[in-house]
Amino acid sequence: MRNLVAHKSCFLVLFLLLLFTSQFSSATKKTFNRDQPCKRFVLYFHDILFGGNDVANATSAAVANETGLGNFKFGKLFVFDDPMTKDKNYLSPAVARAQGFYFYDMKNDYNAWFAYSLVFNSTEHKGTLNIMGADIMAAQTRDLSIVGGTGDFFMARGIATFETDLFQGAKYFRIKMDIKLYECY
Amino acid sequence: MRNLVAHKSCFLVLFLLLLFTSQFSSATKKTFNRDQPCKRFVLYFHDILFGGNDVANATSAAVANETGLGNFKFGKLFVFDDPMTKDKNYLSPAVARAQGFYFYDMKNDYNAWFAYSLVFNSTEHKGTLNIMGADIMAAQTRDLSIVGGTGDFFMARGIATFETDLFQGAKYFRIKMDIKLYECY
Amino acid sequence: MRNLVAHKSCFLVLFLLLLFTSQFSSATKKTFNRDQPCKRFVLYFHDILFGGNDVANATSAAVANETGLGNFKFGKLFVFDDPMTKDKNYLSPAVARAQGFYFYDMKNDYNAWFAYSLVFNSTEHKGTLNIMGADIMAAQTRDLSIVGGTGDFFMARGIATFETDLFQGAKYFRIKMDIKLYECY
Repeated sequence: MRNLVAHKSCFLVLFLLLLFTSQFSSATKKTFNRDQPCKRFVLYFHDILFGGNDVANATSAAVANETGLGNFKFGKLFVFDDPMTKDKNYLSPAVARAQGFYFYDMKNDYNAWFAYSLVFNSTEHKGTLNIMGADIMAAQTRDLSIVGGTGDFFMARGIATFETDLFQGAKYFRIKMDIKLYECY
Repeated sequence: MRNLVAHKSCFLVLFLLLLFTSQFSSATKKTFNRDQPCKRFVLYFHDILFGGNDVANATSAAVANETGLGNFKFGKLFVFDDPMTKDKNYLSPAVARAQGFYFYDMKNDYNAWFAYSLVFNSTEHKGTLNIMGADIMAAQTRDLSIVGGTGDFFMARGIATFETDLFQGAKYFRIKMDIKLYECY
Repeated sequence: MRNLVAHKSCFLVLFLLLLFTSQFSSATKKTFNRDQPCKRFVLYFHDILFGGNDVANATSAAVANETGLGNFKFGKLFVFDDPMTKDKNYLSPAVARAQGFYFYDMKNDYNAWFAYSLVFNSTEHKGTLNIMGADIMAAQTRDLSIVGGTGDFFMARGIATFETDLFQGAKYFRIKMDIKLYECY
């Protein structure tokens, strides 16, 4: 009888251990597996450049001029408060605002660098995601770092994958942003 | 007799397992529980804007002008080296410097975006905390991300909660910053 | 016989538990030990300031002028696309580009603040590291935060230690950057 109890205890311990191990492993995997973000969504970023007379429509404005280092606007710096929508139509309801800045930074081609916050304030999401990194425009897609989050995205980290969707010269451009969080709390 | 030994071994294992599990859980909790930062302190940020003739007092200066997109200084960019004090008096000893920049980024209201370092160099703390995020001025309090740290704050992450304490037009403002670290090493 | 089986099971459990505990501990140590980054390399950052007529050589340009707050270029802001080399020679093959900006931010001495991406695109490394922090020029070495990474540096975090290697006024400077990653995935 005692033998049986001892046996059962051991199996219980083994079961608990396996359960714990597997839970821990899956938690680790969730954090580290590139193909399995803990949260993911695609949003479109719409940037309508201020031309001087279009305050009602514009969502970004140049705050520093290009420097003359090359012919690709090197150093030109823009501040933006851009709508983020679920589809490509910039008139669709904004599910977040993107607030931050970008500048051009290459002398022999167009290339940019971004730092900004996605600000969510809807019934679906409240909080922010903070993002920075190189927008290597020569690449079809490029990855920026999601370096922190607040509110519903408390302490989040991840990757924002940019893909230029439309570029209309100095008036309007649209970027598809694939937001993938690998740390969710 | 052997039965008893087997029994005891099993209980030992169970005990160790529970001990380990609880330790691991508490470590996890420490990282993840919003109400229990591993380190927390409140500091006041004092920003005294340079007016042209007040070099001795000023701690920040505009480096880019507003753009004309709306009436709320959209795009105006400031660089600062501001004292951080433990109480509201800007003449109190600075326990850290806040070095970085902010800009206004909304066309129909005041709203800002910050990126900066808290630089500690006292007997109490040596090191830096790096912070970025949206300063949504319409909200009573707003959270920015502490995205990294060095020295005493090696590899730290957390949340900096802003609350405007005093705003005196284009001359001086004070922000209460509640610094909460959730990752401490 | 049954006793023996029970015994063996218990030892197996104990063994597994110890194995698991030790693995978990070593993983934790790898993340937290300052002396043991999971990846480390030293690169030299070369900044050749644009003077107006040297487009071919220049790698950075001023986008905002100094503000007059003190005599140390307070507020002067530069955008750069600088080569990173393995040795001190700026003509050596660039193993990465550093793309971002810095500005001066102290009224009584030279002091700066950086935010940038290291962009790798070679057979050795593909991906980016995103870095921000105070460049406290009065210190022999100073630490900035590596707040995120992409590609080969997926989700990395760490410390970039700066040491000024050469400073030739307003024409050229070189910084030794000791890149230490403590989170590698």
